[in-house]
Amino acid sequence: MSSHADRLAALRAQLAADRLDGFVVPLTDEHMSEYVGSYAQRLAWLTGFEGSAGSAVVLPQEAAIFTDGRYTLQVRQQVDGSHWSYQSVPETSIAGWLKDHAPQGGRIGYDPWLHRADWVKAATKALADRGATLVPVETNPIDRIWHDREQPSKAALVVHPESFAGRSSADKRQAIGDWLTAQNADAAVLAALDSIAWTFNVRGTDVARTPVALAYALVHADGTADLFVAGEKVTAELRQHLGNGVRLHERAAFETALGELGGKTVAVDPERSVAAIFEALDKAGAKVVELRDPTVLPRAIKNETELAGQRAAQTRDGAYISRFLKWVEETGDLDELKAAAKLEEIRRADPALKDLSFDSISAFGANAASPHYHSTEKSNVPFAPGSLYLIDSGGQYQDGTTDITRTVAIGEPTQEMRDRFTRVLQGHIALATAVFPRGTRGGQLDSFARRPLWEAGVDYAHGTGHGVGSFLSVHEGPQRIAPMGSSQSGSDEPLAPGMILSNEPGYYKAAGRSRCRC
Amino acid sequence: MSSHADRLAALRAQLAADRLDGFVVPLTDEHMSEYVGSYAQRLAWLTGFEGSAGSAVVLPQEAAIFTDGRYTLQVRQQVDGSHWSYQSVPETSIAGWLKDHAPQGGRIGYDPWLHRADWVKAATKALADRGATLVPVETNPIDRIWHDREQPSKAALVVHPESFAGRSSADKRQAIGDWLTAQNADAAVLAALDSIAWTFNVRGTDVARTPVALAYALVHADGTADLFVAGEKVTAELRQHLGNGVRLHERAAFETALGELGGKTVAVDPERSVAAIFEALDKAGAKVVELRDPTVLPRAIKNETELAGQRAAQTRDGAYISRFLKWVEETGDLDELKAAAKLEEIRRADPALKDLSFDSISAFGANAASPHYHSTEKSNVPFAPGSLYLIDSGGQYQDGTTDITRTVAIGEPTQEMRDRFTRVLQGHIALATAVFPRGTRGGQLDSFARRPLWEAGVDYAHGTGHGVGSFLSVHEGPQRIAPMGSSQSGSDEPLAPGMILSNEPGYYKAAGRSRCRC
Repeated sequence: MSSHADRLAALRAQLAADRLDGFVVPLTDEHMSEYVGSYAQRLAWLTGFEGSAGSAVVLPQEAAIFTDGRYTLQVRQQVDGSHWSYQSVPETSIAGWLKDHAPQGGRIGYDPWLHRADWVKAATKALADRGATLVPVETNPIDRIWHDREQPSKAALVVHPESFAGRSSADKRQAIGDWLTAQNADAAVLAALDSIAWTFNVRGTDVARTPVALAYALVHADGTADLFVAGEKVTAELRQHLGNGVRLHERAAFETALGELGGKTVAVDPERSVAAIFEALDKAGAKVVELRDPTVLPRAIKNETELAGQRAAQTRDGAYISRFLKWVEETGDLDELKAAAKLEEIRRADPALKDLSFDSISAFGANAASPHYHSTEKSNVPFAPGSLYLIDSGGQYQDGTTDITRTVAIGEPTQEMRDRFTRVLQGHIALATAVFPRGTRGGQLDSFARRPLWEAGVDYAHGTGHGVGSFLSVHEGPQRIAPMGSSQSGSDEPLAPGMILSNEPGYYKAAGRSRCRC
Repeated sequence: MSSHADRLAALRAQLAADRLDGFVVPLTDEHMSEYVGSYAQRLAWLTGFEGSAGSAVVLPQEAAIFTDGRYTLQVRQQVDGSHWSYQSVPETSIAGWLKDHAPQGGRIGYDPWLHRADWVKAATKALADRGATLVPVETNPIDRIWHDREQPSKAALVVHPESFAGRSSADKRQAIGDWLTAQNADAAVLAALDSIAWTFNVRGTDVARTPVALAYALVHADGTADLFVAGEKVTAELRQHLGNGVRLHERAAFETALGELGGKTVAVDPERSVAAIFEALDKAGAKVVELRDPTVLPRAIKNETELAGQRAAQTRDGAYISRFLKWVEETGDLDELKAAAKLEEIRRADPALKDLSFDSISAFGANAASPHYHSTEKSNVPFAPGSLYLIDSGGQYQDGTTDITRTVAIGEPTQEMRDRFTRVLQGHIALATAVFPRGTRGGQLDSFARRPLWEAGVDYAHGTGHGVGSFLSVHEGPQRIAPMGSSQSGSDEPLAPGMILSNEPGYYKAAGRSRCRC
């Protein structure tokens, strides 16, 4: 296995061969996914960085890695500072850094399948100030030098039965078709993997922790659709489930299909579609209308079947957590990894569990004060009396996705721990019991959860609640409970009956000693 | 006195003489004031409408008056429906209506001293769709036909002593000058009347209920200023107070002075300055930078002297309200007008009272359920047992401006009245006792006041709190406690220590029966 220094050198050689003076490496896939398959983990392969958000820029003489405040420490542990400079976002943007560092008149490459169109526009503008240009690549130069890169998963798509989905795919497609007709549009691009999974009532195993399959789709005003998915992933059962209204194509044929939409009016969601999709449609002579993916709201607003499934999943998952916490109370000689393994074992005994919904945060004492801590063999600590243990975890069950945090005292907690825990719990209860008019936004409820902490002069630096999918993404938009104007979108989305939101105020002691989350 | 029908006909004749196919009549003055002097009450003169917000458009064959939901009833009572069509904002905008109704290829006039630049831009664009043009007028055509129009007030400016202001005008001007230097700008336009009153530590009586004087100002990077005010309003005492750093000019000379700023960089607040100011600067060849009026934040953040004055004024005013409420309790045979007169009499016994801070809302029973009710001889009702009396009023004292509402039971209140009153009071207390981090916005606190009402399935359709001036506007920006995303700006302004905000949740029974406000 090559070293990260070797990989950086190989990329620079490849860039020189490709006549590029730089390249931008984001952490996403062709679907703007939050979690991506291993085939798309180019940033981790190149730099060693294993966090969930970041980007890099490689120039002939310089290389920089961009991460946010959550990863300030981790990026310094995982990425070699003698080869990489550490940049903090949002203080320094990639476009802003390129403006100062790109070679005058240089050509900076980007993969148009891995960036949003608004990013391309901003970076192009920033580079223009240096006389430099942003150049789309045909083939990602990392893919040329990453010889042992895994192929995208070949796992078969599985049908998500109507007994869980509560609504047929034909009905969903017809509703999208009706919406297109109302918008005077001919077709909608679906590029987000959870949008496709929801629309066609299918699930997959191509991405860890999120039950989606790599695909693209076009839904037409008549309610029929084209689904682009690798042929090896298609079973007879799937064909039968999809029926005549869905035409199957290879995933690789998607770009070609966009090229055939000349003269059509096509709805594309600029937040959920990469720049290459817009470029292909423009080139074809299609009329693009930028509209929110029409599946976003109906997916967020769960139907009665999904709500019943969610309640059933929560009930079972709550029992597993209770069983786990009893085990923690009765078992000696524990540590973070042992505890997380036990909880996974308890959950996996349920045949409805398909996966965890995210990597469990099993954190003891000071470790629990890092908001995005993940225990490793190196960081693992044994439980000792007088501190707090936090377990933030969830399951992907066929009837619902869960996300639950509990903080328990190991031994006798201090008065401060009792006080902070109580305030977090008060905030949780204040939010959980809130009654509010239709149309209220999450940003109007967020302060209910913070008030007891504010009264003690403390707060937490993250949002309070996020949407949760129905056997889909554990972080699902568009709604969010967070301070208005915060960097994460969604706090201004009107809440609607049927939406599911988490409720997770917390307290992280500045000195890094204790953490509570309800 | 001519009828409103005569006035409309006269305006149409004047427009024909001016070769215009229409004219837009807003309700504001050359300073974008909320309350305007009688000389600027063109909308009321033309239409008969006496509400505090509205606009009109007159075309050769059609005329329309635009008001918001508060005035749906009032506009129909005051404005003749056989001559005017009633339009509701925000559902119908003036620009939107013009787009459908303006004569093809016509010339629609507007007074550039009475509109913001962004309005001019939007209306110009809307008219372009009809091949019509928006034309600035030299002289407002209403002023040509309004023969008995009052002249702007000639009242002298009075010095607002440093013992109340807490800071000298020279010091304030120097701070503006330093800010200009930091912005690489040469001068700032001050067009808002309260900005000028604050900067120069002067007050006036040109506008009812707000102690400001008609003026413009330019403040320069060196801390000197030009003050444009009618010579007849300038006393020897004022000259001495202003000193050598302030050059006095006639108010009418302001436009000429703007024309002499060619080559200078001038800061102008687009929210607080009319289109004519931008046009004059553009014509002169000045470089305009759009920035918030630099007095807005320091005016909102009261200094220790102003805060002490506010507390003293509130204490006295609270005593007057208490005296008044005791009188209400002990006096028989009351009605709305008698009660309002008594409260004004009590307040006016205080020599520090310069004016009321707004027209008192003295409302009994069903009248109290209209959010903007003003009692008249016609609407006046006697008090009768078993209902609620609401008094929303305030005073302009030299040491502070007040705004206080009390709702009292006359006779025995019903169980519903007790419940709603209690919920409003609970909301008031929840907001009054809130502790929150620096930088929190009003939109994050608003829900604290609504929660007890939400729990009963009710709400109120206005904001919760507004800024209050220091012997200045009773509605003062930039901060506001209101739902985020509401039409009134300010809910996203970070709150800062020293800001003063009102706290006025309420309940208005839909059937129009009862109202509470704390």
